Amino acid sequence: MPLMMTADEVMTVLNRVFGQVDGQFAIEELGEMQITVRLKVGEQHLRPGGTVSGPSIFGLADVAIYMIVMAMIGPKVLAVTTSSSMDFMRKPDGQKDLIATCKLLKLGRSLAVGDVLIFSEGGQDPVARASMTYSIPPER
Amino acid sequence: MPLMMTADEVMTVLNRVFGQVDGQFAIEELGEMQITVRLKVGEQHLRPGGTVSGPSIFGLADVAIYMIVMAMIGPKVLAVTTSSSMDFMRKPDGQKDLIATCKLLKLGRSLAVGDVLIFSEGGQDPVARASMTYSIPPER
Amino acid sequence: MPLMMTADEVMTVLNRVFGQVDGQFAIEELGEMQITVRLKVGEQHLRPGGTVSGPSIFGLADVAIYMIVMAMIGPKVLAVTTSSSMDFMRKPDGQKDLIATCKLLKLGRSLAVGDVLIFSEGGQDPVARASMTYSIPPER
Amino acid sequence: MPLMMTADEVMTVLNRVFGQVDGQFAIEELGEMQITVRLKVGEQHLRPGGTVSGPSIFGLADVAIYMIVMAMIGPKVLAVTTSSSMDFMRKPDGQKDLIATCKLLKLGRSLAVGDVLIFSEGGQDPVARASMTYSIPPER
Repeated sequence: MPLMMTADEVMTVLNRVFGQVDGQFAIEELGEMQITVRLKVGEQHLRPGGTVSGPSIFGLADVAIYMIVMAMIGPKVLAVTTSSSMDFMRKPDGQKDLIATCKLLKLGRSLAVGDVLIFSEGGQDPVARASMTYSIPPER
Repeated sequence: MPLMMTADEVMTVLNRVFGQVDGQFAIEELGEMQITVRLKVGEQHLRPGGTVSGPSIFGLADVAIYMIVMAMIGPKVLAVTTSSSMDFMRKPDGQKDLIATCKLLKLGRSLAVGDVLIFSEGGQDPVARASMTYSIPPER
Repeated sequence: MPLMMTADEVMTVLNRVFGQVDGQFAIEELGEMQITVRLKVGEQHLRPGGTVSGPSIFGLADVAIYMIVMAMIGPKVLAVTTSSSMDFMRKPDGQKDLIATCKLLKLGRSLAVGDVLIFSEGGQDPVARASMTYSIPPER
Repeated sequence: MPLMMTADEVMTVLNRVFGQVDGQFAIEELGEMQITVRLKVGEQHLRPGGTVSGPSIFGLADVAIYMIVMAMIGPKVLAVTTSSSMDFMRKPDGQKDLIATCKLLKLGRSLAVGDVLIFSEGGQDPVARASMTYSIPPER
């Protein structure tokens, strides 16, 4: 199943649709059913103890599955996350960017399921993992 | 098991520790093992389609369990969410505040588990549910 | 939204469709969007330490959402659980039955979401909680 | 971090502790922080439509993390699963065994987190995924 969009096209849609995240995310790598996304960690993502906040980590996982689904099926800006489970395993270093790799395990007509592993840049051990289920509007 | 902090004391710690959320949250009701928290929905919480973003909903669930655990055991600013599962069931109305009620199902020595139901203010049906597991530092 | 089946009708379908569970489950109470189900704990449900096994608890949550969805929309024997999250909070007493209450939080055209709380009979504190997402076949 | 037990030793403990699963599971491969486990699918694991039941799939994920944690830290028969999230993505073929690979993402003093992917033998696409959190008793 070939990609329907390039990384540049995906980023353009993301930044147009979600104006408020403009500049926070970058695609490091994009392939069939898999994407690697960087969160450029800034002041607004931190929480006490010099670490990255839970909502920022959640947002990265959420954006990663949004972008790989879009790259695979074309822009569907109304598609939404319907469920997620996350484990927060280690405190990310607030001085480093976060790198998330999302693999699609299923891309069905109405549901996509992706697994996400998140690392602090250069780290060996994941700081978090997520599973995201994504609903694809029927007009596909 | 009586409360160890009042709603005002909890809010004071929250706003001191998480400066960046100052003014976004308010405690509507605080009781034993249960709290109701309002997210004052503003521009920064919205996403396309006039709805509230996933990370904002996650953040509300995260803050709700943080506050009820703190109210029950006293301020432990280093305690952290270790896992979460969420279902996003309906699109919240971006014109309305979100109201989350978190019930602690377990408050052990090292782990707390809470269930959260989230409504758009005045709505009958929940927009989201979450289960959050919270790790309590051993020095308790 | 009225019930489309009685408790007896639901039990009849369950036992016909899942012959191997015959006699293990009983409906304690059935109402709109809510059901209470008993697992008659026997030798085959136990694990070391005189407690009930994880798969048995999972099976109870799974059956509970299956039955309340069926009671609400009529028999759809091909409907399936698509995702679940569970927290195991206390060890159930292997000498007691388990009692699960499942509330449907959403009953959409294609997805149902239910929250389940599970107690040892007579216990005050839940031994487990579950959220189950259930897929409803399109031919509905 | 080297293994503390061989596959044979792990199987011996499993079958002694959980007499009722004797003969249902086999270790296909055991390495540092990773295990592959076979469920020998039989009549008792099936559900209507010639597929494997949810509780059987859950049980396989549960046994896989139990065995890899035990292989890494030595026998701790009282350790328990504290939470799980699962996605059921495709119907397994009831004529085929299930093969689960569990990777430990974290092995801390008190908590282990593992990711599990489950396939029908010979299949390309996972039938289910699970994340399991496992509590390790303090006397370690």
